[in-house]
Amino acid sequence: MAEKITLSVDALGGDDAPGVVLEGTAAALAEDPDLSIVLCGPREVVEPFAAAHERCVARPTTEEISMGEHPANAVRTKKDSSLVVGCRLVKEGEAQGFFSAGSTGACLAAATLVMGRVKGVARPALCTVLPAPAGPVVLCDVGANADCKPEYLLQFAQMASIYAREVVGVDAPKAGLLNIGSEEAKGSQFAQECHQLLSKELPNFAGNCEGDDVLTARFDVVVADGFTGNVCLKTIEGAVSVLFKALKGALTSSPVAKLGALAVKGSLSGLKSTLSAETYGGAPLLGVKGACIVGHGSSSPTAVKNGIHTAAKVVRGKVPELIAQAVAR
Amino acid sequence: MAEKITLSVDALGGDDAPGVVLEGTAAALAEDPDLSIVLCGPREVVEPFAAAHERCVARPTTEEISMGEHPANAVRTKKDSSLVVGCRLVKEGEAQGFFSAGSTGACLAAATLVMGRVKGVARPALCTVLPAPAGPVVLCDVGANADCKPEYLLQFAQMASIYAREVVGVDAPKAGLLNIGSEEAKGSQFAQECHQLLSKELPNFAGNCEGDDVLTARFDVVVADGFTGNVCLKTIEGAVSVLFKALKGALTSSPVAKLGALAVKGSLSGLKSTLSAETYGGAPLLGVKGACIVGHGSSSPTAVKNGIHTAAKVVRGKVPELIAQAVAR
Repeated sequence: MAEKITLSVDALGGDDAPGVVLEGTAAALAEDPDLSIVLCGPREVVEPFAAAHERCVARPTTEEISMGEHPANAVRTKKDSSLVVGCRLVKEGEAQGFFSAGSTGACLAAATLVMGRVKGVARPALCTVLPAPAGPVVLCDVGANADCKPEYLLQFAQMASIYAREVVGVDAPKAGLLNIGSEEAKGSQFAQECHQLLSKELPNFAGNCEGDDVLTARFDVVVADGFTGNVCLKTIEGAVSVLFKALKGALTSSPVAKLGALAVKGSLSGLKSTLSAETYGGAPLLGVKGACIVGHGSSSPTAVKNGIHTAAKVVRGKVPELIAQAVAR
Repeated sequence: MAEKITLSVDALGGDDAPGVVLEGTAAALAEDPDLSIVLCGPREVVEPFAAAHERCVARPTTEEISMGEHPANAVRTKKDSSLVVGCRLVKEGEAQGFFSAGSTGACLAAATLVMGRVKGVARPALCTVLPAPAGPVVLCDVGANADCKPEYLLQFAQMASIYAREVVGVDAPKAGLLNIGSEEAKGSQFAQECHQLLSKELPNFAGNCEGDDVLTARFDVVVADGFTGNVCLKTIEGAVSVLFKALKGALTSSPVAKLGALAVKGSLSGLKSTLSAETYGGAPLLGVKGACIVGHGSSSPTAVKNGIHTAAKVVRGKVPELIAQAVAR
């Protein structure tokens, strides 16, 4: 039996909210009998859902933060939005973690401003788990902090290593620094300073990771400033998308190819699902007081379900507590 | 009839030199009757080749710069290396351009120190042409300058746009800034400053390009500091490699898939060659006085041949002269 926990969920986050969120929430509740959910959103959405589902409580809210709003301003002014209320429930102890597929910027702002940072953490960071064929790779930061100091990257590495161990299930994660050469003296001034600090302070530091090594899973954790990490993540997403599109074109380019494509269809969709971000269902924001998982705006019900499961793992794995211990050392 | 030109070629550059270089050089000479080559390398390699090929002159050299050496030191001390001599021939007007598949760092150092910068160019930059399915994309800088100022990026954009027009054949290239959001105010402090400068000074500036937009060819030219550009380029290379490997696995995972794979084999190898860097055969260093193309260390004879053809296009397209005019404005 798993530890009984409660998560708050933003019913309004995501392109196809609330439908997709409700479907994913129902599936998560069905799969995890020790999970309770406080669903935040418009009364007419959350109350009927809560009435129809065990272990679900409705928390009606009256405001909504849309994708285009300035994140910090929206969070400060819309105190009764589903996003802010969801985070406040964690702050006030009614829930231990939060899931939203809303605007990433607004989620980061709400979690940081409302839940607050773990003591000692300079900057909370956004991670993503890359579903590389050779094994999962935790990339951090993927966009929360465009401008960084080397000390931030040390904490990103510590936090992401804890996440890799407790949530992703990597026993002794090796951490690499995203850089443009394998030798110590390579890279920008900033990358060189980071290399020195990580070499000195991070026991599981395993050296520089070049761009073409991110998906080989030679490193279980790859750290970068949020600018470089985001470029890397989006470049991977773009390359996968362009390649699959081109592949589809190639497989329908002639009658013979079409026939062959039918035979390989199953294997290809298996590959596509291996590479799919859905498996992990969202990006954790590490370094805030509580679990916070930010889903992709285009999340499917499966992605929402898995994002909620991931939030549960962060809570049960005591990730925020372990991060507090690690940065206090 | 094309303009008659002379290029110097480093016979020693590349993992499989000199064999691969000689094969590529012979093919380039055969395909371009208006091309002459000065082949730099050990006497026993270059003299027999020159004797056996029209329009090829041997330039025996006695030193070699290996991959592991410190680039600038090696260039300063090994004055009779094939790399340094090849660049000196351009400096002294015996050749108009240079090709090497040797150490990228040493090539950059030799070209910059020996050929010299075009007047007004702050930092020569390394470009690469990404063979995206929707059309070629010129990415610049991909590693020559890890630390940059916004003014450098403006020049990278000017130089890469000239290259896109004169060599790649894009009529009115649109330039994007590699960034982590599409809006003006997105990104690091540095990226925001670059955005402002490009908006103001670059007539063909078309806004921010996110990582997932690099391969869509929505922008013909994408500029970045050399750190970010290199991470982006290598991430693409890594993603393509991992995906094709996984694809191979998927296509041999069952007897039915194997049968289907036979039928799609032709289409897939077509796709692979579309995505191959071989087509462009090397990365131009822009901003030096003369053409300089740096081939990949693992260049095939075809890549060497195409790299030499690219150097010829840079010379005939008067790229260095156009760059001088653009930066003088």
